Amino acid sequence: MQIKDLGEFGTIDIINKLISSNRASSGSVSQSARNILVDTGDDTAAWSPYETIELITTDTVVQGIHFTLDTISWHDLGWKSLAANISDIASMGGSPSYAVITLGLPGTTDISDIKELYRGIFAISDQYGVSIIGGDMVKAKEAFITIALTGSIHKTPLMRTTASPGDLIAVSGYIGNSAGGLKLIQESPVVSEEASQYLIKMHQQPIPQVSSGRLILDYGLTTAMDISDGLSDDLSKLCLASGVSATLHLDQIPIHILLKSTFPNEYINLALYGGEDYHILFTGTHDKVAQIITKMPDGAAIIGEITHGVPGQVTLVYQNGDQIVSSRKGWDHFN
Amino acid sequence: MQIKDLGEFGTIDIINKLISSNRASSGSVSQSARNILVDTGDDTAAWSPYETIELITTDTVVQGIHFTLDTISWHDLGWKSLAANISDIASMGGSPSYAVITLGLPGTTDISDIKELYRGIFAISDQYGVSIIGGDMVKAKEAFITIALTGSIHKTPLMRTTASPGDLIAVSGYIGNSAGGLKLIQESPVVSEEASQYLIKMHQQPIPQVSSGRLILDYGLTTAMDISDGLSDDLSKLCLASGVSATLHLDQIPIHILLKSTFPNEYINLALYGGEDYHILFTGTHDKVAQIITKMPDGAAIIGEITHGVPGQVTLVYQNGDQIVSSRKGWDHFN
Repeated sequence: MQIKDLGEFGTIDIINKLISSNRASSGSVSQSARNILVDTGDDTAAWSPYETIELITTDTVVQGIHFTLDTISWHDLGWKSLAANISDIASMGGSPSYAVITLGLPGTTDISDIKELYRGIFAISDQYGVSIIGGDMVKAKEAFITIALTGSIHKTPLMRTTASPGDLIAVSGYIGNSAGGLKLIQESPVVSEEASQYLIKMHQQPIPQVSSGRLILDYGLTTAMDISDGLSDDLSKLCLASGVSATLHLDQIPIHILLKSTFPNEYINLALYGGEDYHILFTGTHDKVAQIITKMPDGAAIIGEITHGVPGQVTLVYQNGDQIVSSRKGWDHFN
Repeated sequence: MQIKDLGEFGTIDIINKLISSNRASSGSVSQSARNILVDTGDDTAAWSPYETIELITTDTVVQGIHFTLDTISWHDLGWKSLAANISDIASMGGSPSYAVITLGLPGTTDISDIKELYRGIFAISDQYGVSIIGGDMVKAKEAFITIALTGSIHKTPLMRTTASPGDLIAVSGYIGNSAGGLKLIQESPVVSEEASQYLIKMHQQPIPQVSSGRLILDYGLTTAMDISDGLSDDLSKLCLASGVSATLHLDQIPIHILLKSTFPNEYINLALYGGEDYHILFTGTHDKVAQIITKMPDGAAIIGEITHGVPGQVTLVYQNGDQIVSSRKGWDHFN
């Protein structure tokens, strides 16, 4: 059965029923679900905020640009679309709460694919306590998914604008795995089953770092962003926003052993320019950063320092001491 | 200059500067702007809520489906995209506050067109006190604009689910003007300059009914929705959500004199099935509805009654007493 057989309203009806039955079947009811006043299906959704600062972010994926259905299932596309938004909330130190989901789809899309997409969305929304409370569906030649996600936070959010010379730079975990997974999918080299499973899963079902973000905030740091476009570019953006430069020590970037063994000559480039890691990049004083990274179980590490200099400039330091100024190579979909 | 010349980040930079300079130049600073903690440009935007119930809605327009650039300017496309969202907040009785705007655009889009689009967005956001605090930009073959808009409200929102048999049905103003305007654009018949200007403006720059929504809420009514897909279909949806039927008196639908004179044989169909009126459809007791419509200056009228019967069924009553059961003819983009 395809969307055009059921029409817009018939399909929306199925989606709303999926959302209701998922909410009913979720074992524990999240705080956000308990605060819903008007649920999906009305003109606008409503909730009672339970903390004093609210957050909102939005992120879109477009078929042929951000994904192809050859390299990701509908289920994982759902997971990943919401993951990217949760990661943006996590990078502020916040907790995600409510999502509205817009689907742009051709009329020939199978209803079973939409159900699979929502299964993937629910898999991650249930895990992170996110309530889906609305959305929109439109016809489009090329599929796209736009999610707007709110969150809440109990004090001033982590921002990109507050890095200071002398700060240490750290990341919340292993970098480059998602790009490694994508490379495995695209090029199908012969690699170990263990590496293949791990890296491809990191690409298709990335794990937003909500706990890490909250930890950074609770320790009193002020500067963070998530790594979505590649470590090098994202660090450059953070530096530009803060009016500072950075030095990045390539041998300190946490690289998972399976990425290193699978791509022994390319892992640094995958880490620097790959993107979609959804780990948190943060800066702060030596003491605090050194303490925080010991609390993060997934490979968190100090990778460099914030310096005075040209705003946005990132100097890469190789193990042998060579230095180069990085230029942007990450994702700019229009270039 | 086109998007591909500046790239994603260069273009986003221009948009962020447009937003900042518009905010700085707005004469009066809205409540929502005063509450911003993290503005556009970071991973996520943040604000302090100033009322106890928060609302969120989202609405998308796609090129070739909802609009073509032959029939609407970039400026008016911006206006209308945000208007549709504001209308959804208005239909709950709420006040709009924060918007995040996603642009899906081809690389060959002119930067000047994006500026024009934002001028249209600012024209309406300034008027309604909406703060633009973020968004996303992605490459897409067919252009689309997705907006997520939050709002706030001081008591239980107006919903679609609470209409009761015996309620009167009313609308906040003239119906069918937007469809009349579209017909003029598409068919270019010879009509008066006055009619042409008025109807085309109603199509391209519709006016969300925030004050009317608030009035309905303040009078203690509970049931409303906005008219976006056509009066007949939207009334049917409201009835379905409430488990009731409705009787709609065609000669009571408020029709503007310029619509009637321009389309003497078609104005009722334009009103019933045209859509995009963005007036509010609401129900309630005789006394309250009769009082409220006198406070709405733009042609508000009582148009029918809620009845017991098949949920979602709408009976159309002609001036001569003939009755037919309406079937859905409004917008379902997949059929």
